[in-house]
Amino acid sequence: MSVRLAKRTQGISPFYVMELLRRAKQLEAQGKDVIHMEIGEPDFATPQTIVEAGIRQLKTGEVKYTPAAGLPELREKIAEFYQTRYSVMVDKKRIFVTPGASGAFLLALGASLNPAEELLMADPCYPCNSNFVKLFDGKARTVPVDATSRYQLTAARIKQHWTKATKGALIASPSNPTGTVIASDQLKQAIHTVNELGGCFYSDEIYHGLVYGENATTALAFSDNVFVINSFSKYFGMTGWRVGWLIVPEEFIDATEKLAQNIFIATATHSQYAALAAFDEDTLAELERRRTEFEARRDFLYEALLRLGFEIPIKPDGAFYIYANCSKFTADSYQFALDLLEAEGVAITPGKDFGTNEANHYIRFAYTTSIDRMAIAMQRLEKFINKG
Amino acid sequence: MSVRLAKRTQGISPFYVMELLRRAKQLEAQGKDVIHMEIGEPDFATPQTIVEAGIRQLKTGEVKYTPAAGLPELREKIAEFYQTRYSVMVDKKRIFVTPGASGAFLLALGASLNPAEELLMADPCYPCNSNFVKLFDGKARTVPVDATSRYQLTAARIKQHWTKATKGALIASPSNPTGTVIASDQLKQAIHTVNELGGCFYSDEIYHGLVYGENATTALAFSDNVFVINSFSKYFGMTGWRVGWLIVPEEFIDATEKLAQNIFIATATHSQYAALAAFDEDTLAELERRRTEFEARRDFLYEALLRLGFEIPIKPDGAFYIYANCSKFTADSYQFALDLLEAEGVAITPGKDFGTNEANHYIRFAYTTSIDRMAIAMQRLEKFINKG
Repeated sequence: MSVRLAKRTQGISPFYVMELLRRAKQLEAQGKDVIHMEIGEPDFATPQTIVEAGIRQLKTGEVKYTPAAGLPELREKIAEFYQTRYSVMVDKKRIFVTPGASGAFLLALGASLNPAEELLMADPCYPCNSNFVKLFDGKARTVPVDATSRYQLTAARIKQHWTKATKGALIASPSNPTGTVIASDQLKQAIHTVNELGGCFYSDEIYHGLVYGENATTALAFSDNVFVINSFSKYFGMTGWRVGWLIVPEEFIDATEKLAQNIFIATATHSQYAALAAFDEDTLAELERRRTEFEARRDFLYEALLRLGFEIPIKPDGAFYIYANCSKFTADSYQFALDLLEAEGVAITPGKDFGTNEANHYIRFAYTTSIDRMAIAMQRLEKFINKG
Repeated sequence: MSVRLAKRTQGISPFYVMELLRRAKQLEAQGKDVIHMEIGEPDFATPQTIVEAGIRQLKTGEVKYTPAAGLPELREKIAEFYQTRYSVMVDKKRIFVTPGASGAFLLALGASLNPAEELLMADPCYPCNSNFVKLFDGKARTVPVDATSRYQLTAARIKQHWTKATKGALIASPSNPTGTVIASDQLKQAIHTVNELGGCFYSDEIYHGLVYGENATTALAFSDNVFVINSFSKYFGMTGWRVGWLIVPEEFIDATEKLAQNIFIATATHSQYAALAAFDEDTLAELERRRTEFEARRDFLYEALLRLGFEIPIKPDGAFYIYANCSKFTADSYQFALDLLEAEGVAITPGKDFGTNEANHYIRFAYTTSIDRMAIAMQRLEKFINKG
């Protein structure tokens, strides 16, 4: 390795799924049909109401910088959304519009995490979350979790792993890759424990809205002393627009604003204007139809995988992922994913992209494609397993 | 200060001009006319060809994630631009599309700068540049510069200030706030010196294109072993779209790609499609008309300020700024700016936003407004000075 590379770049691993994606593209270029169940991006286009709001803004020709914290009217609408959806009051001064949840993580950790400080998070978890910690030369202290805690951290686990170096804890619910929503009480206790310990609590809520049982509770329902990361990408169907938001504890407002001025200047203007339409009645009605469709897909995929012999210790109730134990078929889930792609043209994500906790026994299926396509994928998967 | 705030946030100062902006808005709300000469954003709207390309993309409804490094066709077009404009060949693998120059700085420094390492840069310089260094817990080692080196670093200064802690040097040309372009030979020698010392060279070229004499030379003309930061914001008139680019030395390609995947996922899709039209013949013709207009404004403002008694030791040849010595009128340029705004409704940026090197003697005028408006501003300024 070049001596000029920053040391942090060693700790940041590339996504294994990228190798699969590269191979999938090659196969497709050869004319082979590949069913994509590896992608964390909904197949639905952005709702038309949002697209039209974006076009209206562009037609004005005025695509200038907005304030660093975001368009005041968008921050206002986000605050209203917390009132109507969660019955929670949030001071809009605490709300920052960001370039996706990525930008929200940058601000939250940039404002709070010192080098060598540690953040507790579940294993498995989304790899970017620990990589953001490494970006600021902190340490992601992953805690193995299983179905007994819905693959989520608990107050007990947080206490058990807390050291002098610990800055805080991160909980992502619904979780990527497991799709599980943390129990309301479990979240509340985790937050109170972190607050008692004097740390920072980060709540990754980017899959909120995509929940197929009781609504997920926001961390803000239990405390104002939390960072909440959210996004218009997943539930609102705005992936490529790169717009999300961050809510910070009061004491972090000034530092977050300074960082936003310096790190982004501002979030893309037309994306922010488009997002203003995300809370319209028509948009929300369309999103509700999509949520119902995702739920049907979840049910289809869950039943199909169980029938094939995969173990899914807990039925996922959110996001668009199923994290399935494939140890009945392989001791190396990455090889399993590579072989499945090669033999049958079905792309999935290996467990090792999400940590080391039993990662070789797990694979993630994303139901970001239609039931018709998934039905074909299941036939191919069955054929692959029976051959193996 | 809260003990939970990251220490780096202390080192990052807010922009003093924000205070002026806040006051300017209050005055405008009271019905007072304020002439804005503090803003680093062109008054021109985005060229129509670019806006239309953005609208076309939105109408497809497919605003999905692009690859982390950017749309392949946009990277290709950027590579072509280096060939046609600078006669320089750049491997498109080295080109990363980013959310503005801000995103380019994040990647470049994230991939190369370790905590406690130092970066040499001129004082005065754009404050975000040193703040990016602080974001990664590095140190911005500013070197006082003056008109004798066109307010730019020289090879001699770099050698003189180089220590074991130095990671590299940053040169921004045309410079913000001074508007000066580095002499071609001076740039070449600076790059060779940094290369010989085994450091990293960062060339901030975001005002390229806005040059009113001989074309500015890109650092890539002298070495492939450089980071080049550029943007569609200034010359191409795409501020609010948040799209720029970064070119890295070959050995940094993999690390930069990993960081891009984790830090942004990707740059806004519709902004990238819009930027595809930035290199069209029609667009470039329109940009050339604007460049000529900026040149006329520069000439007008330069003459007017000299006539009023401001000292401008070197006529700026790029960007849209004039950095003027106001020590004939005040020993505190920040107070001068506040008083001028209050008395006459003219907003300018105090020198202390750009460093400490004689900062109290300087103010920055941005000619991002029309000659007609600037003419009124000069009348008001004259009145203010004569009263004072």
